[in-house]
Amino acid sequence: MNRLYHYALSPYSRKVRLVLAEKKIEVELVEEKYWEQDPDFLRRNPAGKVPILKLGNKTLSDSSAICEFLEEAYPDPALLPKSADARYEVRRLVAWFDDKFHAEVTSKLMGERVFRKVMGTGYPDSANVKAGSRAIKYHLDYMTWLLDQRRWLAGNDMSMADFAAAAHLSCLDYISDVDWNRSEVVKDWYAKIKSRPAFRSLLADQVPGFLPPAHYANLDF
Amino acid sequence: MNRLYHYALSPYSRKVRLVLAEKKIEVELVEEKYWEQDPDFLRRNPAGKVPILKLGNKTLSDSSAICEFLEEAYPDPALLPKSADARYEVRRLVAWFDDKFHAEVTSKLMGERVFRKVMGTGYPDSANVKAGSRAIKYHLDYMTWLLDQRRWLAGNDMSMADFAAAAHLSCLDYISDVDWNRSEVVKDWYAKIKSRPAFRSLLADQVPGFLPPAHYANLDF
Repeated sequence: MNRLYHYALSPYSRKVRLVLAEKKIEVELVEEKYWEQDPDFLRRNPAGKVPILKLGNKTLSDSSAICEFLEEAYPDPALLPKSADARYEVRRLVAWFDDKFHAEVTSKLMGERVFRKVMGTGYPDSANVKAGSRAIKYHLDYMTWLLDQRRWLAGNDMSMADFAAAAHLSCLDYISDVDWNRSEVVKDWYAKIKSRPAFRSLLADQVPGFLPPAHYANLDF
Repeated sequence: MNRLYHYALSPYSRKVRLVLAEKKIEVELVEEKYWEQDPDFLRRNPAGKVPILKLGNKTLSDSSAICEFLEEAYPDPALLPKSADARYEVRRLVAWFDDKFHAEVTSKLMGERVFRKVMGTGYPDSANVKAGSRAIKYHLDYMTWLLDQRRWLAGNDMSMADFAAAAHLSCLDYISDVDWNRSEVVKDWYAKIKSRPAFRSLLADQVPGFLPPAHYANLDF
């Protein structure tokens, strides 16, 4: 059986879950509290992070390397476009969310509000929370600018870039940190992606100690 | 004229410089002190980082998205192998160096010893320097383990993974932070990559205020 070692509120795990589900690759989800550095987990994964994908006899790490592998080994449906220019734009945006958005928003809001508590590293630092709340506005505005010109974030077809963005935003939505009233086009985009069958397992996530808002799993939010 | 906005001791800039040079794509190098957030630079590059590649009428950002684009648009010589499994291994290792090695080693040693000074953010934090000096040993041992089984880091052909690793190590070597006596196979690997024509421009780098050690540009170090 294929297995994904993941953590429910890890955006990198969610990105891989979305790609696996779109490509109809079945996996058993195994929750991994990776910060506890369980020796068995570290043996499977010297990088010590989630997600880790056990696929047949392979053990794969790094969410972007996993997604590129899945795209090459399971090309249908395509989540990367054909031309080098369009593929570049998808990869640029995946990196935008996984690096820049993560550093400026996800790590600040999730890091302070969720991981402090589950990792037991003290109270949230309100300066970080404020910085994250400020930064997400600029990112939503950037997404609005992109979506004013395109059907999906990286072009006219849905791609990995949409999954990377939705992975981060869905984690933040779980803790009520996304103001969906800020942008009609971003809300419409999220409604489209949220209603995909691939998204269902994310909407069913429950993290002990953190109750998602009522609109979290609601397709009409 | 193609242009690369870069910083000499940015490992991400160096990785792209190596890939451009291997593929014989000529660029003019423009030094960018990206932390000064020059408005012209930010207009070209909302992510505010180096490297940025101006290639014809395109402006490309994110070092890994740039390298994947260059591989697709200029496939010769190939810096990614053919099979999905082998490509995965290259991408996993590129991410290993650009994320994990960077977080544990480069950001600690370069960050404290170089960027504190050039950015004017105070004295080096010796706890970080110590942590980086400790962590590089484990990484050199991991490289030794890989190179005991393979000619190059990701397999029997030279790839992006070697350039990612050499980009970080060459920055650290500029500030004398690599103990080449720790591993014969890593030293041999670095000697091979250092002697490539693509490496010449990196060995000629001079950063004001930081004098590289005598062995830095020496092919027989």
